[in-house]
Amino acid sequence: MPPGPPHEEQHFSQTQLVRDAVAGAAGGLVLPFALAAGLAGVLGSNPPIVAAGLAVAAAGSIATALGGYLAARGEADHYAAERRREEEETVDYADRERWEVAAILHRYGVRGNALRLAVDSICADTRRWVDFMMRFELDLKEPEPQRAARSAAMTGIAHAAGGIVALVPYMAMDGVRDALGVSCAVAAIALAGLGWMKARGAGLPPLRGAIQTVGTGFAAAALAALVVQAAGG
Amino acid sequence: MPPGPPHEEQHFSQTQLVRDAVAGAAGGLVLPFALAAGLAGVLGSNPPIVAAGLAVAAAGSIATALGGYLAARGEADHYAAERRREEEETVDYADRERWEVAAILHRYGVRGNALRLAVDSICADTRRWVDFMMRFELDLKEPEPQRAARSAAMTGIAHAAGGIVALVPYMAMDGVRDALGVSCAVAAIALAGLGWMKARGAGLPPLRGAIQTVGTGFAAAALAALVVQAAGG
Repeated sequence: MPPGPPHEEQHFSQTQLVRDAVAGAAGGLVLPFALAAGLAGVLGSNPPIVAAGLAVAAAGSIATALGGYLAARGEADHYAAERRREEEETVDYADRERWEVAAILHRYGVRGNALRLAVDSICADTRRWVDFMMRFELDLKEPEPQRAARSAAMTGIAHAAGGIVALVPYMAMDGVRDALGVSCAVAAIALAGLGWMKARGAGLPPLRGAIQTVGTGFAAAALAALVVQAAGG
Repeated sequence: MPPGPPHEEQHFSQTQLVRDAVAGAAGGLVLPFALAAGLAGVLGSNPPIVAAGLAVAAAGSIATALGGYLAARGEADHYAAERRREEEETVDYADRERWEVAAILHRYGVRGNALRLAVDSICADTRRWVDFMMRFELDLKEPEPQRAARSAAMTGIAHAAGGIVALVPYMAMDGVRDALGVSCAVAAIALAGLGWMKARGAGLPPLRGAIQTVGTGFAAAALAALVVQAAGG
């Protein structure tokens, strides 16, 4: 391998599970926090706020985990079906599939003799030929079902944890106003930290990520409060 | 182009906006439906159920739209930054970047003379060279900021609409039990239809998609009801 910058080391590296946990917790915090803040404007005691908030946290957690798992299974099925189709097409429509390989390489400037030789090499082995079509024509990557299941579980657990964090003040304190204040502070700190980590994991400016995540959460809470007031809850 | 099956016509085609609307409505329906069903078990009248449900629908809608928009902007920034880096690397570490092009093609069976010629063709033009690295090394696609904004807006609107659909029975009817029954029926029909469309759009079995989407929504509602009961809301 010729000298050059070691790519991996230029990035802050987070494992996929950490990323799932961060995204899950940030996503899971917002709605229970927003709902509780909205209800705090009209209710006189904390227990019904906690009950409604926990219901949203639990429902959101199961919907996220189950939805994520089923989506991943759907993608795996889709990949398998498309792969079978491509395999059949390399037999039934070999000329057209060869032409498609050529068309993809042509887009990147491969022409004439170079193109013919490259297409011959790729199409010499059916598995590689189909690999090439899956990746470069259909833009589908080989699914990893076990990883998807772990990812869905982690996202769901973190989602519930995020919601509970926003509700702890309402569980621990008596006064609605006091709990609302503490919940806002806790949510701001948690969302800032999670937004920071999320941005770093995606290679984006962390401070902007923190501000945006806090802003989104508080916009949702403000809207929830307005709606509860308007609905005369 | 050699003869072969016309790919596009083998798929049921949905525009991206329709897909955004379907996914947004399905996602937006679940939590207001689940929360309302949970609260219906312990509350004696519909107005507080409607207020809490609408608060979650509104907060979820703004969080989804804003979150989607900001994520798309982040992706666009990430793409631009990575593209600049790749452009610099084709100058500063040309040998290594050529080697990376060769390594990618090598994976698909291009060897020897064919490989040398193909790499020469791709690296002859810096724009195509960087295009190749963006797409095949980094797996990043050119972002479409306007489309992302439209997509976020459509998802947010559909998200709110989905939530309202689940709450209409509680707005229109007096009895909590009656409204709960009608809301369950409405949610089942809506989630089945949306799950069906979502699966068709993704090239998956529609009936399974319908069943899974209904199952997820009702699992969330059942859990919400359990949590409200347990929390003594």
